[in-house]
Amino acid sequence: MKEDGFGPVVVAGLGLIGGSFAKALKKRGSRVFGMVRDPAKALAVLRAGAIDAVADGAMLKECSLVLVALPPAAALEFLREHAGDFAPGSLVIDICGVKRAVCDEAWRIADGRGFRFVGGHPMAGKERSGFGNSSAELFRGASMILCFREPPPPEEFARIEGFFLSLGFDRVVTTDPATHDRIIAHTSQLAHVLSASYVRNRAAREHSGFSAGSFRDMIRVAAMDDAVWSELFIDNRDNLAAEIDELIGSLGRFRDAIRAGERGPLAALIRESAAIKREIDAADTKG
Amino acid sequence: MKEDGFGPVVVAGLGLIGGSFAKALKKRGSRVFGMVRDPAKALAVLRAGAIDAVADGAMLKECSLVLVALPPAAALEFLREHAGDFAPGSLVIDICGVKRAVCDEAWRIADGRGFRFVGGHPMAGKERSGFGNSSAELFRGASMILCFREPPPPEEFARIEGFFLSLGFDRVVTTDPATHDRIIAHTSQLAHVLSASYVRNRAAREHSGFSAGSFRDMIRVAAMDDAVWSELFIDNRDNLAAEIDELIGSLGRFRDAIRAGERGPLAALIRESAAIKREIDAADTKG
Repeated sequence: MKEDGFGPVVVAGLGLIGGSFAKALKKRGSRVFGMVRDPAKALAVLRAGAIDAVADGAMLKECSLVLVALPPAAALEFLREHAGDFAPGSLVIDICGVKRAVCDEAWRIADGRGFRFVGGHPMAGKERSGFGNSSAELFRGASMILCFREPPPPEEFARIEGFFLSLGFDRVVTTDPATHDRIIAHTSQLAHVLSASYVRNRAAREHSGFSAGSFRDMIRVAAMDDAVWSELFIDNRDNLAAEIDELIGSLGRFRDAIRAGERGPLAALIRESAAIKREIDAADTKG
Repeated sequence: MKEDGFGPVVVAGLGLIGGSFAKALKKRGSRVFGMVRDPAKALAVLRAGAIDAVADGAMLKECSLVLVALPPAAALEFLREHAGDFAPGSLVIDICGVKRAVCDEAWRIADGRGFRFVGGHPMAGKERSGFGNSSAELFRGASMILCFREPPPPEEFARIEGFFLSLGFDRVVTTDPATHDRIIAHTSQLAHVLSASYVRNRAAREHSGFSAGSFRDMIRVAAMDDAVWSELFIDNRDNLAAEIDELIGSLGRFRDAIRAGERGPLAALIRESAAIKREIDAADTKG
């Protein structure tokens, strides 16, 4: 275990993401206290060895790092409920897929209290949610996005960055909530809406024997958890609706070119898209 | 090598698919004759060991199986040019991603000639085309779609099926050109149009650090070969335009539910899509 001085860590919420944090923390040698509302689930997670103990709010006083792995509204509810329980100077980080809806309110809750809130979003997931699908390896190669209210001193940032790298993350990216929500609306939310829309076409159910990798890639994330994603989509509705509209515009251009039946304009559209794809690939290789 | 009586095989066109057929044929022990227009390319393929010899039309007389691995118009051109060269009773199979535009005309060309044409479409591909990306393993786990003009006798079908299974295919599926084109418009063509549309949203270029698996899956096939795909899309324009319209309809429903900001109706849409996805997965597991 790295000596980053964080000591034992509280993980509140033990679904796919919280469970994976707990397991990755245990793997690096941290002591992990789990907080879950459902006692049966708490016991199951304890028996699975993903946490050292089931904790309640009293334990928050003794820990300098708390990961809140709950959906947006539940995360804010947790912060409100425990605003007076956190240890002075402790760091409280959430994992929500939207940041405006969480950070602004979380920073208000932290005002005048002794704890520091940092918005977090691990860019890792799986097509199936729940503790049963969690893994100590979930974050391997992923980036961890952090939204600080004010830039931390370099040595403090390095300590936090080192913590996340020790859990398998590839890099830590900092941004502000508005930028996060705007880009995530495309890279994650639109991809999920697309997958969920694509399977609705009647022909999807006839795919057997007529499909290959492109079909499988397209449908992979179509079976979302409706409670989790309906909240995230609506919290980011302005950005996501704009992304869908922009995509519908491009699809319309392709459809019109295809319907017109002239190869030249269609080939030009295809080439433009291919050039963007290659730009994205090249940036990835560099970065 | 299996004793299916096909003897040496001619592969006309040695791009990604033709090259992969040549390599898979060599791997199972077949003698392979390659036909390519460009002499420099023919020599390169020969040197790479993917074929035993470079052939011209004269060789067709000596082979009972010809795989035409060319785009639709070029494949028909090849059939017209060599209609008199094929050996009596020989089997000529194309690999085009559309079947109406190829089969009807190919069957006309075969009328009164001694060869039998069967429409083929291997459900395998890669995001990069060309012989350089071909592989003897490309067809592993894939299905091979065949369109027969009339159902062949069972023993003849078994012989053809055995041939494709010996190249790594998982199964052989038979259908008619119209059904093929209707389903493929969704499972392959729409997936490609979607990917090429998705990368056009401005935020795609800002993805670095803000993306994970769903973004990568979504963009994988966005860099299509414009010559190949513009032809395939336009040959299947009625089906593909209808697929795009159907998808735009679903995207609009998601957008409206998201914009309305009420979780209930949005969650219901998400659940419907998830149920379809699970249906597709269950059908895959069964068979």
